[in-house]
Amino acid sequence: MEKFIKIAQEAKRASLKIAELDTEIKNQALNSIAEAFEAAKQEIFEANKQDLSEAEKLVENGEITKSTFNRLKLDENKMRDMIQGVRDITGLEDPVGKVLLKRELDENLVLTKVSCPIGVLGIIFEARPDVISQISSLAIKSSNAVILKGGKESKNTNKKILEVINGALAKVEGFPENVVQQVFSRDDVAEMLKCDEYINLIIPRGGNNLVKFIKENTKIPVLGHANGICHIFVDESADIDIASRVVTDAKTQYPSACNAVETLLIHKDFKKASELLASLQLSEIKLIQNPESWDIEYGDKILAYKFVESLDEAINHINTYGSGHTDSIITTDSSNAEKFMNNVDSAGVYFNVSTRFADGFRYGFGAEVGISTNKTHARGPVGLEGLTIYKYKLVGNGQIVDDYAKGLKKFHHKDLTI
Amino acid sequence: MEKFIKIAQEAKRASLKIAELDTEIKNQALNSIAEAFEAAKQEIFEANKQDLSEAEKLVENGEITKSTFNRLKLDENKMRDMIQGVRDITGLEDPVGKVLLKRELDENLVLTKVSCPIGVLGIIFEARPDVISQISSLAIKSSNAVILKGGKESKNTNKKILEVINGALAKVEGFPENVVQQVFSRDDVAEMLKCDEYINLIIPRGGNNLVKFIKENTKIPVLGHANGICHIFVDESADIDIASRVVTDAKTQYPSACNAVETLLIHKDFKKASELLASLQLSEIKLIQNPESWDIEYGDKILAYKFVESLDEAINHINTYGSGHTDSIITTDSSNAEKFMNNVDSAGVYFNVSTRFADGFRYGFGAEVGISTNKTHARGPVGLEGLTIYKYKLVGNGQIVDDYAKGLKKFHHKDLTI
Repeated sequence: MEKFIKIAQEAKRASLKIAELDTEIKNQALNSIAEAFEAAKQEIFEANKQDLSEAEKLVENGEITKSTFNRLKLDENKMRDMIQGVRDITGLEDPVGKVLLKRELDENLVLTKVSCPIGVLGIIFEARPDVISQISSLAIKSSNAVILKGGKESKNTNKKILEVINGALAKVEGFPENVVQQVFSRDDVAEMLKCDEYINLIIPRGGNNLVKFIKENTKIPVLGHANGICHIFVDESADIDIASRVVTDAKTQYPSACNAVETLLIHKDFKKASELLASLQLSEIKLIQNPESWDIEYGDKILAYKFVESLDEAINHINTYGSGHTDSIITTDSSNAEKFMNNVDSAGVYFNVSTRFADGFRYGFGAEVGISTNKTHARGPVGLEGLTIYKYKLVGNGQIVDDYAKGLKKFHHKDLTI
Repeated sequence: MEKFIKIAQEAKRASLKIAELDTEIKNQALNSIAEAFEAAKQEIFEANKQDLSEAEKLVENGEITKSTFNRLKLDENKMRDMIQGVRDITGLEDPVGKVLLKRELDENLVLTKVSCPIGVLGIIFEARPDVISQISSLAIKSSNAVILKGGKESKNTNKKILEVINGALAKVEGFPENVVQQVFSRDDVAEMLKCDEYINLIIPRGGNNLVKFIKENTKIPVLGHANGICHIFVDESADIDIASRVVTDAKTQYPSACNAVETLLIHKDFKKASELLASLQLSEIKLIQNPESWDIEYGDKILAYKFVESLDEAINHINTYGSGHTDSIITTDSSNAEKFMNNVDSAGVYFNVSTRFADGFRYGFGAEVGISTNKTHARGPVGLEGLTIYKYKLVGNGQIVDDYAKGLKKFHHKDLTI
């Protein structure tokens, strides 16, 4: 515990220092990381092999799944993507220091709202070593400090990657220490979740159970989503071709994605319902009519469906059983589409489009911190902007409130061009 | 408990309905409330008298303070302000339905980011009956449902005010039921804080202890601030007149405000330090040099002070002991001011200005939900915008992700004018 507090305090101090850095130094830091990854590729693969050989036994014992094993595995392709990911972030606009509002409250009394970093991020992720480089880069670009806790199965890889990152950062003149730190034990996770004095935002990267556990065990704001129960409602007037294409894509293009569709609602008067269902079965989608539970994230080519009496019933079903992630209507009636998009209380509300578009890259954010189903701070796919907040600067020449309270002076609140 | 869940579910349902209302109906609702207050003034005063006669005994027994009693008391002036407050909110821009981003991802595939309400607000406040009308009006204008829990000392007044509000809302055609609800018991507060399934944001209005208690006992996001430990740093080059005026205003204009200064830091080389301290004493400010604790919110004409070696020490002191509320530097050196404003990690960072300016009305927001020291969602004085979030609408004509994954189509991410 005392050890974790020390790490958290170092992170806080580092966060204050990195907050001052200009874009140039942050981009230098990112380039330095990318170069260091190139140079240390083989060492990283070696560390990864150690993890993999231990993980093989765990797969045999049934302690971890084959897909966990695959996520753990770093190969040339993943390494190339990882390095490219870091370089891509250098090209993104700096989200810090943007003037969001400039207002003259009175003569010589100017208020400026400026974006700034959040502070210290706590990142908890499963055995995906590529997350370290991605999140560290996003944190650096947005001037936040991070404390990382990865899955124990990737311990050796994580250690090596962080060593390479910190080696690269040490070479950048003026870049502060302790911006990127790592912890390893379960106790550290418990400490992190309690540490609201120093940690400003927790970002979990991993499966539902991890996210649920974190959301239930911390008072620190959590950016993420536990569930992705996405719906498609096929309206009475839907185009059968669009319906079939979109539902098939939303279910089969990547069935384990959080934005894959889990529930299909079909208007009882949609004439081509059986044609639609037949086409889905042709795509090897297993259909379950009226399942016992409507809030299962199958993560597989399984699709629950039911017939609904009306648009209202569809909206109500989604608002009751959905997870507020992404839901789509297929219709040729644009007023129904408008009603659906206004009344469905989800981060993404779509019209004649696959739910799979819910993604920071597809939205053009250039990077994705995660997808949030929160109702505060950031919702939907979150780009770099989601790692910032703002502060108000007020510059005057000796103004006091008493003059305004007494009516000797008056605010004129004139917005200035930014 | 079951009873509270029912109220929360009703609020959730109401929140979905009020989300659809256009500005016109919401303003009608606000005008209807203002008129109803005019008409029911005497009844409200009667209810308030009941509370006051009971509260008098509590003051005598020492169970509540005289200032709590005063806040509880509704007189003609407060009633007039209350009614004017409701009317003023009709004049504010509707924060809902604003297009924040419009981007063509590809031909006929348009993404729109639109502001929308948060959902259900839980408001916990002490014996200040005017909070009900203010918060209810802000909630209505921003299309949120609210559940209110006021101090027990103002129970009769609160009941009557809510009865008047709901009577007024019932007269407005198309305005949904249960947008504004009230609970009364301590158990209800406990239930509210646990009810993260239905309540999206908690706003406490009251003293530090209330806010601290709430922040420590809920996972629901809390908008507010527990402490207001504001600082003024008088730099070596400060103008003595500005220093004296600003510190005096920040301490004496309203000593119990959260944005009043509590700690004065003076550069050791500031030549007119003794002149400054003497002028503060002339304004009846009690000065305490190097107190045992630096995180006391005196709420009175008491000011802690110390001499610091440097700007860095001042910044470090503020980031260590401050509450991230509002801090000001008095200096003639603009590069020092710039450094102070960039490095002090507070919602408000001021230069030659009194900390008392930290206020939604003074910033020109037209209304104030509260002042937040959070590092996510909303920071500093929060206007109506702080009661909103956004959703993404995506409109297409049958697009699927598979086409983009296979390279058959490409995103062009073209921002459209809003």
